[in-house]
Amino acid sequence: MQDLDMHVRFVLIDTAQPGNIGAAARAIKNMGFGNLVLVSPQVFPSDRAVWRAAGATDVLESATVVDSLDEAISDCHLVLGTSARERRIPWPIANARDCAEKVLAEPEGNQVAILFGREHSGLTNDELQRCHLHLHIPSFEGYSSLNIAAAVQVVAYELRMARLVAQGKATVDSPWDEPMATSEEVEHLLSHMEAVMTESGFLDPENPRQTLTRIRRLFTRLRLDSSEVAILRGMLRAVGKDN
Amino acid sequence: MQDLDMHVRFVLIDTAQPGNIGAAARAIKNMGFGNLVLVSPQVFPSDRAVWRAAGATDVLESATVVDSLDEAISDCHLVLGTSARERRIPWPIANARDCAEKVLAEPEGNQVAILFGREHSGLTNDELQRCHLHLHIPSFEGYSSLNIAAAVQVVAYELRMARLVAQGKATVDSPWDEPMATSEEVEHLLSHMEAVMTESGFLDPENPRQTLTRIRRLFTRLRLDSSEVAILRGMLRAVGKDN
Repeated sequence: MQDLDMHVRFVLIDTAQPGNIGAAARAIKNMGFGNLVLVSPQVFPSDRAVWRAAGATDVLESATVVDSLDEAISDCHLVLGTSARERRIPWPIANARDCAEKVLAEPEGNQVAILFGREHSGLTNDELQRCHLHLHIPSFEGYSSLNIAAAVQVVAYELRMARLVAQGKATVDSPWDEPMATSEEVEHLLSHMEAVMTESGFLDPENPRQTLTRIRRLFTRLRLDSSEVAILRGMLRAVGKDN
Repeated sequence: MQDLDMHVRFVLIDTAQPGNIGAAARAIKNMGFGNLVLVSPQVFPSDRAVWRAAGATDVLESATVVDSLDEAISDCHLVLGTSARERRIPWPIANARDCAEKVLAEPEGNQVAILFGREHSGLTNDELQRCHLHLHIPSFEGYSSLNIAAAVQVVAYELRMARLVAQGKATVDSPWDEPMATSEEVEHLLSHMEAVMTESGFLDPENPRQTLTRIRRLFTRLRLDSSEVAILRGMLRAVGKDN
């Protein structure tokens, strides 16, 4: 098993609900990260956090608890802050996906911090001004109050996806268990089907065109595999007159 | 305010924890969706769900509760099922991002269902075989048990991002409040700075090269705006000898 990535730290500031801390630990571990920093959490440690962390209690137990943002980020080379609102003095800002690209582009060994604010009020202006870049999750205009752990989940997910995309590993493909049917196999199936349709009286050989074209379109669209052709032909043989 | 999108329904099956139902309601509303379907929830309605839903109680209250998956998806044109594991008979599968593209490509008016399974065991094989496509969230190999509401959040987020990308609205740009400095403004600043450095004795005019190049690189990298040039030149004037 690969180690958890400790170069990106998720910094939760003044979190009120211990459940959110546990859920955040679970969210970052699910995406391969292990560095959780808590600035003045209101309740910690807590059973509720442990319960919500599920299998990520290791991340929760190794979380760093500090009293100030300074302590949380003093050794960091890049600091990002999550922000839902426009600020009076505009700051460099990017969406979660573009921010993940920037984090991925950091030289190896650089420490990155991503700050998440309070449940009801987010990060303060002073905290946001400590950041190189503001991270925005483009939520629905009519209801943009993301839960803290949900925001952590989205950011951690984008960081993981950025890495997987760069490694060419983002696409999931489950190897098919049967070879695709060849054009010849499908043509034999279609001829067989036409014969059975005609013999059974379903198809009028005097006016067959549209039905056969639709059947052809259906099986072309399907991209049958060899075992599927074999099953369908077996069924046709069983119902056909000359079996 | 735009209406919530009701064409994609988020179907939660046999959910044990009511908190997860509330958090799922919040997650989908945050991303602009409003259609929550609960198949045999173990506890519903529940105060815990209302609490976790925060401002999304409207979505929670209008959730459809049914007894079977059949009822949940009978009128759906496309059905996706979240799946963490490999299946014995491979099924078409894609990651959350590629699935979001497919959902976006559906003809208008088509109903789409996305199924989320039980907290501990996910969807059954029978349920997964009702799906056109399996959706995989590529989580960390060492700990891939995503919380249900976290999975809902990631999927809803990808659906929203797919739409924003298609509309050219995914990139966030906060309009800068000042015009960028022109090349001439920056050259005047650099000359002014060189003069003050030389006058103050900090810079040896006999061997100035590297310092000036580093200063030039710093201010080129910075992309100053006009007000920043004005502030820096004001400071130089204040500390310079000939002010």
